[in-house]
Amino acid sequence: MRKVNVGLIGFGTVGSGVAEALKAKRGYIKSRYNLDINLIKICDKDIISKRKVKVDSSLLTKNAYDIIDNPAVDIVIELIGGIEKAKEFILAALKKKKHVVTANKALLSIAKDELFQVAEKNGVQLHFEASVCSGIPIIKALREGLAANRIQSIYGIVNGTCNYILSEMDEKAIDFATALKQAQEKGYAESDPSLDIKGHDSAHKLAILASLCFGIDVKPKDIYTEGITDISSADIKYASGFGYAVKLLAIAKKMERELEVRVHPTLVPRNYPLASVSSNFNGVLIESDIVGETFFYGQGSGAKPTASAVISDIIDISNDIVNKKLEKFPIIVYDKQVDKIKPKKDFYCSYYIRFSAIDKPGVLASISKILADHSISIASVSQKVRSKQKVVPIIMLTHKAKELSVAEALEKIDALDAIRRKSVVIRSERSRI
Amino acid sequence: MRKVNVGLIGFGTVGSGVAEALKAKRGYIKSRYNLDINLIKICDKDIISKRKVKVDSSLLTKNAYDIIDNPAVDIVIELIGGIEKAKEFILAALKKKKHVVTANKALLSIAKDELFQVAEKNGVQLHFEASVCSGIPIIKALREGLAANRIQSIYGIVNGTCNYILSEMDEKAIDFATALKQAQEKGYAESDPSLDIKGHDSAHKLAILASLCFGIDVKPKDIYTEGITDISSADIKYASGFGYAVKLLAIAKKMERELEVRVHPTLVPRNYPLASVSSNFNGVLIESDIVGETFFYGQGSGAKPTASAVISDIIDISNDIVNKKLEKFPIIVYDKQVDKIKPKKDFYCSYYIRFSAIDKPGVLASISKILADHSISIASVSQKVRSKQKVVPIIMLTHKAKELSVAEALEKIDALDAIRRKSVVIRSERSRI
Repeated sequence: MRKVNVGLIGFGTVGSGVAEALKAKRGYIKSRYNLDINLIKICDKDIISKRKVKVDSSLLTKNAYDIIDNPAVDIVIELIGGIEKAKEFILAALKKKKHVVTANKALLSIAKDELFQVAEKNGVQLHFEASVCSGIPIIKALREGLAANRIQSIYGIVNGTCNYILSEMDEKAIDFATALKQAQEKGYAESDPSLDIKGHDSAHKLAILASLCFGIDVKPKDIYTEGITDISSADIKYASGFGYAVKLLAIAKKMERELEVRVHPTLVPRNYPLASVSSNFNGVLIESDIVGETFFYGQGSGAKPTASAVISDIIDISNDIVNKKLEKFPIIVYDKQVDKIKPKKDFYCSYYIRFSAIDKPGVLASISKILADHSISIASVSQKVRSKQKVVPIIMLTHKAKELSVAEALEKIDALDAIRRKSVVIRSERSRI
Repeated sequence: MRKVNVGLIGFGTVGSGVAEALKAKRGYIKSRYNLDINLIKICDKDIISKRKVKVDSSLLTKNAYDIIDNPAVDIVIELIGGIEKAKEFILAALKKKKHVVTANKALLSIAKDELFQVAEKNGVQLHFEASVCSGIPIIKALREGLAANRIQSIYGIVNGTCNYILSEMDEKAIDFATALKQAQEKGYAESDPSLDIKGHDSAHKLAILASLCFGIDVKPKDIYTEGITDISSADIKYASGFGYAVKLLAIAKKMERELEVRVHPTLVPRNYPLASVSSNFNGVLIESDIVGETFFYGQGSGAKPTASAVISDIIDISNDIVNKKLEKFPIIVYDKQVDKIKPKKDFYCSYYIRFSAIDKPGVLASISKILADHSISIASVSQKVRSKQKVVPIIMLTHKAKELSVAEALEKIDALDAIRRKSVVIRSERSRI
C-alpha cells in the first residue's frame, strides 16, 4: 500500500468538507487506488468551534508551520483563501519541497507565474483543479485530455452565484435585487456578493484558464470585466423573445496572434449547450483545433466539489511521490500562442441594444442611419407595440461589429432628441467560432 | 528532450488521420510537453493506396510483427478494428512489453478483462480513451478527474450516427429512412449502418464505461439493447409536445447493489443538458456521490477526435516510460460496486406510451383501469383531436413503474377491442437521479 501524508491549512466550511471527504473516502481510495491518504495535521486560526466533521484534537494546530515544517507531510492543502497569508504559506511549503494543492483562484490569478516557478525550481507539484469550476475536471481536461489540441476559444459560465441569479430572473421573471436576495437565502451568494456579481471572481478564473491555454501570463487587470448588476428582467425577457438566454460569460478567444479576454453578460442562443446551464451550475465550452467543440458542465464551488477536485489532485501527485523521479509535464507552460491582449476598442462581437425612444415617425430611420454610418449592420429589430407611455423600447441585434464603432454610434444615437435614456448594450455570442 | 517511438497498426481513414495529427503536432508537443513523439512504423494490409497524409514509404509494412517485434517501438497504436486480428496483435504487443493505445470498443467490450490482465502482468499500459466518445476526455475524467467519487449513474449519447438521425427527424420532421439516407450522404453513417442504428455500438461503449465505473466486468450481452429503427417522426413530434426530445441513451444506474444497464431510445426533458446534444455530437451525463451531476459533450468519432484521444494517451504513457518505474494506478479496477446486473423485467423508469384506439366513449377509462390495476400511474395524457379517421392516438406519460408491470398491462390493453395497433412504448428518464 502506498502511503501519502497530507496537511490541511484552512478548516472553514470548504476545509472541513475536504477533511470530511478525506475521512469518508479513505477506505474507497485504498481499495481502488492502492493508496492510503492520511490527513495528519489541520491548521486554522479557530480550532475551538465545532465542525461538521469530527477530527482528533491532536490533529489541530493554530500554526501553519506545524504543517509546513513537518517532515512527515508530503502534500500541503491550502484552503484559507485570500492573498498574503496564503501566498506566504504556499511559498514556504514549496521551498520545503512539499507538493501543494490549492483552490485559491484569487491568489493564482495574480501570482501564478511566481508560484509555478518556485514549484518547478524545488521539483514539486502545485495543483489547482479546485480553483476553477471545482466539480468539473476542466484543468485536467485542458492539460491532459486535450493535450494534442491548440485551444482557440473558451466560453465559460464559471460563477455559480451569477448563473443562479440570471437563471432565476429568466425563469421567474423577477428583478436582480429579488434574485440576489434569494441567492443569499439559499447560501449561493455571500452576504457581500460584490466579488461575484461584479464579475471579478469570473475574471480570476478566466486568468487561470487563459494562461493555461494560450501560454501567456494573463492577469485579472488585463481582462475587461463587467458584472451583472445592471441586467434588468426586461432585457432578459426581450432577449428571450429573440431566442437567447443571458449568461455571465468569461471569454478568451485567440484571433491571429491576439487574445481577446473579457467577462460580461452575454446573449447566448437558447439551443447552445451554455444556455442549458441552469441554477448555480458552471459550464465551459472549449473550441480547439483537432476535436472542435467540447463542453463541460457541473457544480463549480462548495465544499463537496472542492473536495472532489482536491482529492483528484492528491491522487495525481501521489503517483509522482511513489515514482520518486519527478519528470512530469510542466504544470503550466508558457508556450506563447499569442503575442498580446487585444484592447477593448477592438473587441469584435454581436450586440443586443435597447434604445428608449419617443414613439414618433423617423426615429428608427435616424438610428439605422447612424449605425450604418459606423458599418454596423442590423440582424433583427423589434419595436414594442405603442403604449400610452411616450417612450418605447426598440430592440436591435446587430451582426458582428467592432466595439469602438458601437460605442461611437451609441454616443451619437443617445444624443438624438428622440432618445430619452442611455441605451442598454449587451454583447452577444451568436456563432460558435 | 524525452523521446518516444510509436508504431501504428491500421492505416485507414482513422489511422491516416492519426498519422497526420502526429506529424502536424510533433513540433507543438515538443515545445509544450518536452516530448518528441516519433512515428517510426505503419502497418496496413494495403500499403499502396494514396492517403491524405504523406509518409515515407520506408515506414510502411504489411506485417504487424515488424512493429510488435521491433525493439525500438515503445508504444503500439491499434486502429484496425475488428476482433480476432486486433486481439492477436494487442496481446502480442503487451507480451513484448510494449504499451498499447487502442480505439477498439468492440474488442474491449468483450475482452477487456483478459487484455488488462495481460497488460498488468507485463507491467505495461493499455490505454483506450479513443474507444468511447473520442473527442471527449471521458475515460480520463472518470479514472482521474472524478477519482474520489463513487459513480451512481451514467446517461450517455455515445453514438453520433443515431444522434444525427434523431436530431434531423426532430428538427426537420422527416422520417427515419430519409434521415438515415442523409446521414449516409454526409458520411455520418456507414453503408451498412446496423451496428449503429441497432444500438450495438452504444452497448459496446456502455460496457466499457460501466465496467470502469462499477467495478464489474459488464459485457454487451449483459446490456438490454434496443435501436432507433422503430422510432417514428410522429412519436418524436408528440414527445416534443410534452417538452421532451428523443435520444438514444446508454444508461447504467446503480440501485443498491444491482446495476441497471440498458441502451434504448429515451425521452429526455428539453431543458436537460442531454437534450442540447445535437447533430452527430456525443454527450455523457455522470451522477456521482461527491460532485453530483457533471456533463461532458463533444465529437464522438472520426479521424480527428480519435487522433486527439490517441495522442493524449501517448503523452500519458510517455510519462511512465520516462519515469521508468511503472507504479501507476491500475488501468481498470474491479472494485465491485454492485453484485449483479438487474434483469430487464425489473427495470424501473417512466414510460411514453402511444395507444392507437378507436375513438369511442370508454376507451380511455378501460386503458386507465388496466394501468391502475398494474400500479402504473399516469403523469400526463393527451388525446389528439377527433378526425375522420376512426383510429386516434392516445399519448400517455407514466410515472416511474416496473418494466414487467408495463409489459403485462400493455398485453392486456392491446387485446382490447378498441385498440387497433400494437402500442408504442418509449422509456423516459424524467428525474435526474
